[in-house]
Amino acid sequence: MNRQDRLTGCNILERVRKQRPLIHCITNYVTAGDVANMVLAAGASPVMADGIREVEDITRLSQALVLNIGTLREETVDSMLRAGKLAAQLGHPVVFDPVGAGASGFRTGTALRIVREVPCTVIRGNASEIRTLAGDSARSMGVDADEREKLSEVNLAATRDMLSSLSQRTGAATVMTGETDLIVDGNRVCLLHNGNPMMAKITGTGCMLDGILAAFLTVSSSEERFTAASYAVAAHGICGEKAYEKTIRSGGGTGSFRMHFVDAMSKLSDKNVGEEARYEV
Amino acid sequence: MNRQDRLTGCNILERVRKQRPLIHCITNYVTAGDVANMVLAAGASPVMADGIREVEDITRLSQALVLNIGTLREETVDSMLRAGKLAAQLGHPVVFDPVGAGASGFRTGTALRIVREVPCTVIRGNASEIRTLAGDSARSMGVDADEREKLSEVNLAATRDMLSSLSQRTGAATVMTGETDLIVDGNRVCLLHNGNPMMAKITGTGCMLDGILAAFLTVSSSEERFTAASYAVAAHGICGEKAYEKTIRSGGGTGSFRMHFVDAMSKLSDKNVGEEARYEV
Amino acid sequence: MNRQDRLTGCNILERVRKQRPLIHCITNYVTAGDVANMVLAAGASPVMADGIREVEDITRLSQALVLNIGTLREETVDSMLRAGKLAAQLGHPVVFDPVGAGASGFRTGTALRIVREVPCTVIRGNASEIRTLAGDSARSMGVDADEREKLSEVNLAATRDMLSSLSQRTGAATVMTGETDLIVDGNRVCLLHNGNPMMAKITGTGCMLDGILAAFLTVSSSEERFTAASYAVAAHGICGEKAYEKTIRSGGGTGSFRMHFVDAMSKLSDKNVGEEARYEV
Repeated sequence: MNRQDRLTGCNILERVRKQRPLIHCITNYVTAGDVANMVLAAGASPVMADGIREVEDITRLSQALVLNIGTLREETVDSMLRAGKLAAQLGHPVVFDPVGAGASGFRTGTALRIVREVPCTVIRGNASEIRTLAGDSARSMGVDADEREKLSEVNLAATRDMLSSLSQRTGAATVMTGETDLIVDGNRVCLLHNGNPMMAKITGTGCMLDGILAAFLTVSSSEERFTAASYAVAAHGICGEKAYEKTIRSGGGTGSFRMHFVDAMSKLSDKNVGEEARYEV
Repeated sequence: MNRQDRLTGCNILERVRKQRPLIHCITNYVTAGDVANMVLAAGASPVMADGIREVEDITRLSQALVLNIGTLREETVDSMLRAGKLAAQLGHPVVFDPVGAGASGFRTGTALRIVREVPCTVIRGNASEIRTLAGDSARSMGVDADEREKLSEVNLAATRDMLSSLSQRTGAATVMTGETDLIVDGNRVCLLHNGNPMMAKITGTGCMLDGILAAFLTVSSSEERFTAASYAVAAHGICGEKAYEKTIRSGGGTGSFRMHFVDAMSKLSDKNVGEEARYEV
Repeated sequence: MNRQDRLTGCNILERVRKQRPLIHCITNYVTAGDVANMVLAAGASPVMADGIREVEDITRLSQALVLNIGTLREETVDSMLRAGKLAAQLGHPVVFDPVGAGASGFRTGTALRIVREVPCTVIRGNASEIRTLAGDSARSMGVDADEREKLSEVNLAATRDMLSSLSQRTGAATVMTGETDLIVDGNRVCLLHNGNPMMAKITGTGCMLDGILAAFLTVSSSEERFTAASYAVAAHGICGEKAYEKTIRSGGGTGSFRMHFVDAMSKLSDKNVGEEARYEV
């Protein structure tokens, strides 16, 4: 394991809380509030703006960009492309979430176009979405990943190679989230085992991770990209574990879990991440 | 009481959790997140998509459709009509919620057009909205029902007949929610007494019921439609009762209630519904 | 201190809960649900509608209007102007929140246009936004206020004069929220010290205040405008204090705070506001 691949001893959360980077999110209306609250809980500052007449101004003012096609409409595609190209020019991290790629021709086409035209820093999706982007023949069941598409011991090597190839083709680090998360940046690979199944029982945990990724990347150098991405996924998963514990202890359900999840991020420290991250590099 | 009209001994929730149907929601941006979380809490999987370029793809991929005109814009009307017609052709349950029908000419006109052009499975609204759809002279006060419009002992027979006529005209089961809920499918009538007034003190409980109705209808045969609709309304009301209890016990207010409401659905069992439903068929 | 400037002995919350005014909100999709829940918690009734084909009908049906440009799109500008002009004609209170004015040319231009064309009752924003509207040279950092722009002992007199001038030019009471809130209506000035820093760690507290302002103004005469606005800001800040206490006591974070904040409003009484408001008139 390279020294720089280790998730202990990092101070990324501390840096986020000190620098309070402004994260420009062009995202869906279902989880926009949850993303904003999670970005705030991580210590950064969100600005949600997708109007074609202002996205470039907002991008210029911000330090990172999230593109999430969760509730995609025609008019937002242009906003995403314009903001994405400008952010990349300005050297801002761009996190792209191809929500539901594979579920409709429009989403698949838009996702492929964004990956082609916008130099993304990180691409994050579930197994279906990432496979669709990678040109895998697997067909999405919608916004949730199909059983056969999920990461397993059987398909681990092939999946890693697929992500590595997607990473090399796009220049982005690729993050495939699921029971086990797989982060691949060129030839570097991290398998992450944090998280809890209840994260899939509320909407928007993936979208929230997009915001955290953007915040963590903003305070990291481009050489630290792989570590920052892995660190974000670990922090997110650890929050899921802590939230689950609190939920069970209080006799709550998924509504409680959602609250505790944000609570956990707002109280998380770098020490927590360093001690509780479970991963293989 | 017919055997099939009884809400005890059903296993609808179990079926939802086993089959995890995908529910396509074209809904408003105010409560979209709440609807998604409630659909997940019931055991189904939501996909929110309203872009004209993809609604048909998403409908094809899904097992049910919710149409909710809560924040209606011109461009969404076409999406609703296209998705609605296709869903009906595919034999998917279509739940229509005429939010605010009567409050503006645009909403009333759109609601009437949807009912005319889309073969709905269930139409659900408050007293104002249902009266508007039924052509009743009562005038809506907005998105909340007016006192005179509400179901009462005085207007019960007339209201039942109005819903029955609306049901026969549209071919849909009609659900009028309020202090007492009235479910009418052709000549079959169910009066439901579950629920709690605090449900009207948070936004979106009606919209969440739309998602639950769709999930429950998806795992039921068309012969079970009346039972599935009644069962959904009962489950929803029981969650309101459980959430109220927890809220009072913890000294909370409407914010707590909102969380406990989702908690209750995520922990609800068929046994709970069977034992706690209070209704007259 | 004038008798009428005192915040003790008011019964504004009682009036809201009795009259249940309908508040028409044209607002952003990030916090629309939170605003609706807060309006309900205060005892009023929200209706969120921004479609150009219905805004005037909805305005006519309502008793107040909120205009919030948080996620502004081209097509919504017309809806805001139409609704705003009609509401003013009908004598309804109009609360305008220039979210992010200064952050993009589009937002700044639209905010200035709304202030020019719509007779607003209250204009509410953070230091950046209000300075932008007032034509101050300070440049916004986005949706959050810059340190130098914030109210301080050094700039208090100048800021008060700036708000007074904005108030006289627009005919609106002006509310600049921050660590200390400043309410200026013509020559009348109120400094409010309630609130808690955690309010800035969740999204939408400002937007929620817009809804509360509208509700409180609706049940007040135009002579009471200054008091009603101050009372709304005080009530909002007191809810922040109560929510913070509960959050700390339960070991929670910002997710818990968000829930307790709504809880506090739903349980707040006029007596609480009278006793706990900390202000200088």
